[in-house]
Amino acid sequence: MPDRRITSRQNERVKQAVRLHHARDRAEQGRYTIDGVREISRALAGGAEFLEAFVCEELLADDLARALSARLEAADVPLWQVDRDIFAKVAFGARHEGIVAIARMREQPLSALKLPADPLVAVLVGIEKPGNVGAVLRSADGAGVSAVIVANGGTDLFNPNTIRTSLGTLFTVPIAAATGAETLAWLRAQGLTIYGARPDAELLYHQADFMRPTAIVLGSEATGLTADWLAPDVQAIRLPMHGAADSLNVSATAAVLFYEARRMRDTRLPKRT
Amino acid sequence: MPDRRITSRQNERVKQAVRLHHARDRAEQGRYTIDGVREISRALAGGAEFLEAFVCEELLADDLARALSARLEAADVPLWQVDRDIFAKVAFGARHEGIVAIARMREQPLSALKLPADPLVAVLVGIEKPGNVGAVLRSADGAGVSAVIVANGGTDLFNPNTIRTSLGTLFTVPIAAATGAETLAWLRAQGLTIYGARPDAELLYHQADFMRPTAIVLGSEATGLTADWLAPDVQAIRLPMHGAADSLNVSATAAVLFYEARRMRDTRLPKRT
Repeated sequence: MPDRRITSRQNERVKQAVRLHHARDRAEQGRYTIDGVREISRALAGGAEFLEAFVCEELLADDLARALSARLEAADVPLWQVDRDIFAKVAFGARHEGIVAIARMREQPLSALKLPADPLVAVLVGIEKPGNVGAVLRSADGAGVSAVIVANGGTDLFNPNTIRTSLGTLFTVPIAAATGAETLAWLRAQGLTIYGARPDAELLYHQADFMRPTAIVLGSEATGLTADWLAPDVQAIRLPMHGAADSLNVSATAAVLFYEARRMRDTRLPKRT
Repeated sequence: MPDRRITSRQNERVKQAVRLHHARDRAEQGRYTIDGVREISRALAGGAEFLEAFVCEELLADDLARALSARLEAADVPLWQVDRDIFAKVAFGARHEGIVAIARMREQPLSALKLPADPLVAVLVGIEKPGNVGAVLRSADGAGVSAVIVANGGTDLFNPNTIRTSLGTLFTVPIAAATGAETLAWLRAQGLTIYGARPDAELLYHQADFMRPTAIVLGSEATGLTADWLAPDVQAIRLPMHGAADSLNVSATAAVLFYEARRMRDTRLPKRT
């Protein structure tokens, strides 16, 4: 158990941690909050760089939570013991599992991404809602997407709601960030076939050949894909729309596309199953 | 333009409308709020029973909004003209497009559902988050699902966030509500093959035969399917999970399953495309 105790809400560490609830302060501090036993466990497994953690012993729900606290301590992460009141200020949302960790924000460059032989890459262009980003990451993880690239900015990966709704998959899916032009150049250099999801496409998604090395590009529902992604070698694909609405939620579109690629690879190429 | 004007926040109609932001009050009043030009337009098209509407003329954004106000008036819906302050109280969320309508809650019984020859039915069991319910409805609409059945309660269809995230498809997809037992009996009586999404299933979703008359049953992420849905004629199916997390967001699962059924029907049975 941590032997360092913080008893004042006015403590500077507490105040700095509370500010991390806001995107601007995360960017300024270069740090973000990871809240919850499952999320912190996955962040540990995924190699996140922990800077410190706040522990409220009486809130540590079970042996799993206590073991996690011990693992952080063993990894030389400074642990600060706090009471319920201070913990509630630092924690994000209502689920208080007794540990909140602070990690260093890292934006992996494209050059650091290592792709497998048959890559399936997802590119997110300005997807703003943290709940959608989290769900997209979760579907990418489930479908075995090789890497997720956040292009053109506008996607707040380190929002506590992104982390929460990603169920920690933010830490396990390889992620890189770059401008749109850099991303497009990199995808071309990797020899990927690039598909962009657009409601006005002629090609249906299940007519695409996702068995080749593939990149799937998804824009925001409000603004769609940016100009970078109108290049002639970006093939537009769409889902058929049989009802009243003209599109799905972006995280639903992502799930359908990622899993169709997975299905093609798993059923038509048995050697990859 | 409406000639009836409400100028006091203490007006009883205003107070009743404000209470509709809460599920309990919706159930008590048997009414719910529809907020936004697109949502109200779709509700009109879908046959919702409007009881009244609040209009703030200076907020009516464009000709579309003004035409909608005129359509409601032509349909003999009482329109109450209010100022910005009163409108902000009645509206839900931050998007103020100048019209908020109040409609009667209707729970269609199973007996009123009319299925096509090759039905594809979705059953939602206790899916609580309005954002998820809305996204599921939107995917059901897009994939051409014949009907959505809300079984076993616990799904708040008339939450303003459900309506908003459904993009109005709540009004266009046929919807019924019933107990789990009633729903199961009805699905059997219709001769549907029943598939239940469960993470512990052996059968992969793309191995299912969705070309038959089909029901797809989706439970909540937290509690899964209730005991009703463990019957031997409910075939368990799952998505392959290639990463760290053991499931997708329920709305992502729904989208993949609905669209796989759609794909099978569209590509293997060309006469139905």
